Amino acid sequence: MTDNKLSIDRPAIESLLTRRFFFAPSFGIYGGVAGLYDYGPTGTALQQNLINMWRQHFVIEEDMLEVDCSIMTPAEVLKTSGHVDKFADWMCKDTKSGDIFRADHLVEAVLEARLEGDVLARKLAGASIANADAAAAPADASGAKKDKKNKKKGGPVVATKLDDSVVAEYQNILAQIDNYDGEGLGELITRFDIRNPATGNEVTKPVEFNLMFDSSIGPTGQLKGYLRPETAQGQFLNFSRLLEFNNQKMPFASAMVGRSFRNEISPRQGLLRVREFTMAEIEHYVDPQNKDHPRFEEVADIKLSLLPGSVQLTGSTDTVQMTIRDAVAQGVIDNKTLGYFMGRIHLYLMSIGIKHELLRFRQHLNNEMAHYACDCWDAEIKNSYGWIECVGCADRSAYDLTVHSNRTNQKLCVRENLTEPHIYEKLVCEPNSKVFGPKLKRAAKPVLEHLEGMSPADLSAVKDALASDGKTTVTLAGSAADGTYEITTEMITIENKTITEYTREYTPNVIEPSFGIGRILYSLLEHSYSVRPDDEQRAVLSFNPAVAPFKCLILPLSNHASFKKPLLDVARRLRTNGVPARVDDAASVSIGRRYARNDELGTPFAITVDFDTAKDGTVTLRERDSTNQIRASIDEIVDMVKNLVAGSATWEDALSKYPAVSAAASD
Amino acid sequence: MTDNKLSIDRPAIESLLTRRFFFAPSFGIYGGVAGLYDYGPTGTALQQNLINMWRQHFVIEEDMLEVDCSIMTPAEVLKTSGHVDKFADWMCKDTKSGDIFRADHLVEAVLEARLEGDVLARKLAGASIANADAAAAPADASGAKKDKKNKKKGGPVVATKLDDSVVAEYQNILAQIDNYDGEGLGELITRFDIRNPATGNEVTKPVEFNLMFDSSIGPTGQLKGYLRPETAQGQFLNFSRLLEFNNQKMPFASAMVGRSFRNEISPRQGLLRVREFTMAEIEHYVDPQNKDHPRFEEVADIKLSLLPGSVQLTGSTDTVQMTIRDAVAQGVIDNKTLGYFMGRIHLYLMSIGIKHELLRFRQHLNNEMAHYACDCWDAEIKNSYGWIECVGCADRSAYDLTVHSNRTNQKLCVRENLTEPHIYEKLVCEPNSKVFGPKLKRAAKPVLEHLEGMSPADLSAVKDALASDGKTTVTLAGSAADGTYEITTEMITIENKTITEYTREYTPNVIEPSFGIGRILYSLLEHSYSVRPDDEQRAVLSFNPAVAPFKCLILPLSNHASFKKPLLDVARRLRTNGVPARVDDAASVSIGRRYARNDELGTPFAITVDFDTAKDGTVTLRERDSTNQIRASIDEIVDMVKNLVAGSATWEDALSKYPAVSAAASD
Repeated sequence: MTDNKLSIDRPAIESLLTRRFFFAPSFGIYGGVAGLYDYGPTGTALQQNLINMWRQHFVIEEDMLEVDCSIMTPAEVLKTSGHVDKFADWMCKDTKSGDIFRADHLVEAVLEARLEGDVLARKLAGASIANADAAAAPADASGAKKDKKNKKKGGPVVATKLDDSVVAEYQNILAQIDNYDGEGLGELITRFDIRNPATGNEVTKPVEFNLMFDSSIGPTGQLKGYLRPETAQGQFLNFSRLLEFNNQKMPFASAMVGRSFRNEISPRQGLLRVREFTMAEIEHYVDPQNKDHPRFEEVADIKLSLLPGSVQLTGSTDTVQMTIRDAVAQGVIDNKTLGYFMGRIHLYLMSIGIKHELLRFRQHLNNEMAHYACDCWDAEIKNSYGWIECVGCADRSAYDLTVHSNRTNQKLCVRENLTEPHIYEKLVCEPNSKVFGPKLKRAAKPVLEHLEGMSPADLSAVKDALASDGKTTVTLAGSAADGTYEITTEMITIENKTITEYTREYTPNVIEPSFGIGRILYSLLEHSYSVRPDDEQRAVLSFNPAVAPFKCLILPLSNHASFKKPLLDVARRLRTNGVPARVDDAASVSIGRRYARNDELGTPFAITVDFDTAKDGTVTLRERDSTNQIRASIDEIVDMVKNLVAGSATWEDALSKYPAVSAAASD
Repeated sequence: MTDNKLSIDRPAIESLLTRRFFFAPSFGIYGGVAGLYDYGPTGTALQQNLINMWRQHFVIEEDMLEVDCSIMTPAEVLKTSGHVDKFADWMCKDTKSGDIFRADHLVEAVLEARLEGDVLARKLAGASIANADAAAAPADASGAKKDKKNKKKGGPVVATKLDDSVVAEYQNILAQIDNYDGEGLGELITRFDIRNPATGNEVTKPVEFNLMFDSSIGPTGQLKGYLRPETAQGQFLNFSRLLEFNNQKMPFASAMVGRSFRNEISPRQGLLRVREFTMAEIEHYVDPQNKDHPRFEEVADIKLSLLPGSVQLTGSTDTVQMTIRDAVAQGVIDNKTLGYFMGRIHLYLMSIGIKHELLRFRQHLNNEMAHYACDCWDAEIKNSYGWIECVGCADRSAYDLTVHSNRTNQKLCVRENLTEPHIYEKLVCEPNSKVFGPKLKRAAKPVLEHLEGMSPADLSAVKDALASDGKTTVTLAGSAADGTYEITTEMITIENKTITEYTREYTPNVIEPSFGIGRILYSLLEHSYSVRPDDEQRAVLSFNPAVAPFKCLILPLSNHASFKKPLLDVARRLRTNGVPARVDDAASVSIGRRYARNDELGTPFAITVDFDTAKDGTVTLRERDSTNQIRASIDEIVDMVKNLVAGSATWEDALSKYPAVSAAASD
């Protein structure tokens, strides 16, 4: 399984992220709460930059209608949307200790532990045949790390060889673990005798646990509410207002950035599975009869790494490289609008610094699809936890608008004036009011409604019966007018009529790209992390200037009094040029250590004030990744930093304009 | 009371705000939920601009540490902070119908209705003496509006004259209504026979209702949580991490922008009293022995409109105009840091467009102060609902850090190296371990701790007793070692010692400016609203370009095919220049109506493509407030718009560079 995960020194990264306060468990001094995290100054700025770039890339660039809706949601809305009944995970309990597990996570952890035990057993067996000493040596060398790894959630890894067929079966199950429902998971638990790894006790059959936090609204306690599990519902409920705001023009999209909540059974994997998170969601409304996109050509030739459902069902996770144009043409991606947004998602993730080879789009299998979706592709980013869903791109069809419209009796649809009127023949039934009403009395209305609601085929059969026998019967069920009624030729006329329609009314379909900002942010941290080739202890976060929390560091060589004035001068000039900068004047800390500290913050540039500054007004400018430095006047350097941060100059441009100087000895 | 409210046509504004989707009740198609609102595209962009300017003005400009903490908060944290016990309003119930009221709102509404009835009675009495006809006429003319006004929450306004002394008493009570606790409100209800205005029934004594939404965290349901009522607690809990991030330097500030929740008893006044709202809060940590601020001079000469507590207690609401320097010097404002932030708040509100004469700072009275505050000034903005608290600026002293530190046994304090060691004499008690322990046995530790915890005076008394009698007793209470113990001269030595301290440890005080973004936004909408002098039906929102939701409108004169290309060209050029623009090409709508529509969105500039554009490549640029237009080439106009939006040019600059042209006939 290892090559499905990014190989990286996670403990070292985690230590850096805590030390530089990217994020930390919320309520830490109270012991913390699983699945809740606070972002520190670096994490907050990074998150803010990702959101600003998202707004620029999607909302501004595509003229979307951004809204900001309530988090607290009355139960009725989420009952209608299906979340009260279906937004749940499967949970099981240790029958004795009462420990609670998310059923699929438990199965996964136990099977993975057994597979690792098998690998270990095979290695030991192979080693004992080949060379017992050689096998022992590497195990010793990496001993400390191995011990940590062995403390898996699936229990201690015991070297037990499995049959080849069992290995294949386990791997096949793990490849589609998201595809099992409660019953399926229950069967796996029984069949493979899966128990609580910590106690060895059996676990109960999986039961559903709803993932929404509930509360009550107002002083009477009678209005039940939930914290929204997604931002989408608020957007759907405002559909009519938004359509009007858009001057009735279709297609259009709404968008929202905001907090959502899921009361996870077992939060884990740091920022990847949390109980409170920031999402950025787009609801793009489209004519179901025309899912093309006007800007499709702009992305059509982008090559995506695709993992279609059909491939996954064979147990394989091999991706296909394909242009969006081909994928849509071959029906791998259902339509151009879905393809367009997958292309735009790809471009966004590339622009913030996600690595190309660590991004793929995986199609949802039928059983894992959310209750509202009819097709869905996840943008998955590979990090040290595996391939992680970071953006969902679902076709929610007309599901949401339809259910809310039915529940509230409010129209949530588009009325379109037709350029050519729509003319067609239709079998229509018309009552003869002199006979129909008096004969059927109170049943007249329900019987007429029943006839009008008939399919063309059924109505045609009634017409034929009347033509041949002069009468027929209709049977009503499920209303106050239950019963069988006789219909005669005097009572109604059924005939083909020519219908001319000048407008068309339809419920739009929704294509929803939905971004988990925290997951993207964490993956980006891993993709940006490296250590200096000459010193493993010195880590660098190589953010591009646009996403970097701080753009420029300003520091004096030492705490010499003459440095104070130029330092403030540089800071002021950067500020008036709109470059967020931080001063690091901790004089007791060597300049090298201060550079290192800011490499860990991912600050791309550093301006240093030294003894030459007082003499000739020059400062040095250091670039984080290369650690190269150039020297020029304060004016020139500030101007260069402004261009570097804005993306209108590269470091190569800077080097070609100003010669590199030798770095301080301590760097 | 009317001159305490901004006189403005609120129904007209509300209609505009709904029509242009600034905001609307959440879950509207489900009938809505009181106190929950959704922001539409205009409101969201406006809010985002206010927040961005806030970040620039406070976080970037002052190098604050912005964080982003969890909303869901375990009960223990809010128990410690005092919110579980004290964050409540007083509620009473109609004894028969069960209708629920916020007690102070009920008293206020009923007394205000009675005062209005008195005004009416006096007017009628005066009129009947002077001229009955004249009095009748204006009542008829404004009849429609009067009827609406009469449907007050305090019940129908009945013309009943009150004694002058009663009027004075009511007015005095209303001026300090925030100053009553539950008992006080109960007394008012009994004394003035205040009943449910709708039913005439009596109401119960006020009882406390906690304003936090509760929920439970995790699948067991055993960890109780609340939605945070303010963002502050998350900042306090991260104090140590933030101090470390700031390289142990004091003073510093943290900041957060985020959603908070209050389960209001009776939400009202639109965006002003809601159940879910966006706050922006700053926690500035300061040495309690030195509450000066390094940048105080920058704001010292700003004149503020102040309403000190001492003035309010006389029943007056007359403000004093005073420089911050004088107010601090005279002790009206407690310290320079508080004064500094009041100045910065003033500057921020001016920069977004709040009107100078509609802003005042009101000091909290003792009884209305939050449980954690030791001094507090509210920036109140006058709008059609009255003087509304929009920013609180509280000195929370060391309250929060102290209670959390005590509860968790984690130090939340600053350790400072002293430049000069602190040398002083101190009475110290030292046990003679050979006698003290053996004699007191298990009580030895608690008795020693008791002695060490004594005040210098008490310890001095023990010393004197030992000196004169050779023995004395100490009494312990409240621990397992309760009892009276004999102490002899052999057991301890008490003498003056010279103490030399090289470090100082203290718990910082917190100055907290706390911004209600929704209240500021709503007040700004009212301050920006006007109607065209020549047409009452045409409203304008005169936002300055920095806060305007959309900066520039682009529109074709008609849907002539030749306009399409220059339209896209202008749009593209604005986009590359970073100016958010919207196209309004609804060809069926006259250009005048499209200008009017965008005046209601507050869009400051409009570029129009017309027949001359095709001929000579020029377009017109219209300014919203003056409706003046200039004409120049696309290049020149785009460049001018860019400068106008960035604030580097004014409309006067534009007019002096390019001559005004006559506006289209329809405008």
